[in-house]
Amino acid sequence: MINKLVEKIKKTKAPIVVGLDPMLSYVPEHITKKTFHEFGETLEGAAEAIWLYNKEIIDSVYDLIPAVKPQIAMYEQFGVEGLKAFQKTVDYCHEKDLIVIGDIKRGDIGSTSAAYAVGHLGKVEVGSKKYSAFNEDFVTVNPYLGTDGIKPFVDICKEEKKGLFILVKTSNPSSGEFQDQMIEEKHLYELVGEHVAKWGEELMGDSYSYIGAVVGATYPEQGKVLRKVMPKSFILVPGYGAQGGKGADLVHFFDEDGLGAIINSSRGIITAYKNEAYASFGAEHFGEASRAAVLDMIKDINGALEGR
Amino acid sequence: MINKLVEKIKKTKAPIVVGLDPMLSYVPEHITKKTFHEFGETLEGAAEAIWLYNKEIIDSVYDLIPAVKPQIAMYEQFGVEGLKAFQKTVDYCHEKDLIVIGDIKRGDIGSTSAAYAVGHLGKVEVGSKKYSAFNEDFVTVNPYLGTDGIKPFVDICKEEKKGLFILVKTSNPSSGEFQDQMIEEKHLYELVGEHVAKWGEELMGDSYSYIGAVVGATYPEQGKVLRKVMPKSFILVPGYGAQGGKGADLVHFFDEDGLGAIINSSRGIITAYKNEAYASFGAEHFGEASRAAVLDMIKDINGALEGR
Repeated sequence: MINKLVEKIKKTKAPIVVGLDPMLSYVPEHITKKTFHEFGETLEGAAEAIWLYNKEIIDSVYDLIPAVKPQIAMYEQFGVEGLKAFQKTVDYCHEKDLIVIGDIKRGDIGSTSAAYAVGHLGKVEVGSKKYSAFNEDFVTVNPYLGTDGIKPFVDICKEEKKGLFILVKTSNPSSGEFQDQMIEEKHLYELVGEHVAKWGEELMGDSYSYIGAVVGATYPEQGKVLRKVMPKSFILVPGYGAQGGKGADLVHFFDEDGLGAIINSSRGIITAYKNEAYASFGAEHFGEASRAAVLDMIKDINGALEGR
Repeated sequence: MINKLVEKIKKTKAPIVVGLDPMLSYVPEHITKKTFHEFGETLEGAAEAIWLYNKEIIDSVYDLIPAVKPQIAMYEQFGVEGLKAFQKTVDYCHEKDLIVIGDIKRGDIGSTSAAYAVGHLGKVEVGSKKYSAFNEDFVTVNPYLGTDGIKPFVDICKEEKKGLFILVKTSNPSSGEFQDQMIEEKHLYELVGEHVAKWGEELMGDSYSYIGAVVGATYPEQGKVLRKVMPKSFILVPGYGAQGGKGADLVHFFDEDGLGAIINSSRGIITAYKNEAYASFGAEHFGEASRAAVLDMIKDINGALEGR
């Protein structure tokens, strides 16, 4: 799957991923009006609204991008109905040949991590049958529990040729509270980065490992350091746009050849129609606004990469 | 909810929690035979099997214990159908007046943690209505992202009078890889423990904070230290039984008055019928085997507390 990701980035010339993180308040009124009319103001009505919203965004941008990153929390808040919408979104993105990075940030002790890995990347056995439940291509994983929390995910990745992005340095303001602490001569995030590099060694694709890392766009200096600590790890970079990251800040996350990183934008793309720059599309044409925002994002990042 | 937990522990004289972590391989054949007959060897058939298995265990032990801790990964591996069984389990435990600790180990940046908090502890808004989706009483949370990942959970706990158990020192063998690292004069787990104590100050119950901690039974020395670092935090202690922890090792997790900690056992209780000590009950009577195992666990822990 890492080879497919690299290949799709080369083909689209877009090292970007669109974060499908729908809040109900993002969904234009003409959609909620319709689904509430059909299902009432219920969890089902909310789930149908976010699914229709996602579908129009996917239809509008799928040919421009290699991958999407649905944030499962935004679905999980609506309970089982929300998770049905998550499942439908993953399946629909696969129909459109998009790579799906499930932003699930799971992580637990061995046997429990194994259950998460099976449910999101692998196949669960039921009697003599096997089923893929959520069936993402990559998932994000939390490293706080150490190697035996990560290993079951790596094992399933080996079997399924799928991949991980492990949290190293997250994009939020207080990420430094623990991640920046000094352990002897290095920061905790560097130590975690070294582990990511080591975990990744045993599962190499053609040029990058199946085991990547998450490093926030809001921390470009740390990105520069971590690029060197994990030379074979693809870096998933959240925090572009709404969280404050800009193309020019992100060049050091990439290798010389412009590969090695993929930049996520969520709100900046999916709520583009609410942004002054794209407001002329109107809420009815929110998909077109998202497409315009994707094109501008690709231009910003490629411009920064060419200009370095 | 922390006051209710303390009250129920006093009433049952059982500072224990039963981990409802059903693997399909734990479920006796007479149940899977029945559900596969009805639903086929499908995700639905698997989910119905774990639900029936849970129900019989709950019916057999609910009067002895204050709380249960369903591990959501074990349900999530069966996708949406599994999560329906999780939801049914939570609801049924509430019918039996059990406190439900959702072992979800979520944790993300601010707005995303807010969505998890809403989905598991709070109420999500849909138009003019509000719904509790999963509706646990406590959840476990991962601290790696720092205060702004925790804060949204604390805010919802304030609104709903619910609580958290934040991962501090986990029970697994490699938990030390990051958690035991020295930061100046202290271990990372101590630093996290100090933050748990601080986060908990603003949300106090009668004698303990609504914000507790997870510290593994397999690390009694660290438990002793952390008991002092977080004097007002209830400690949820996994790792008893199958993972190796014993009553005598656990006395230092408790305060002088025998409160302040709650010990979890999962496999030791729910698969008791497979254990030589309780095998005479037979697979048909697995619920009775679980009840006997709960009674023995209570005796072991109370004996250790009285003997200190």
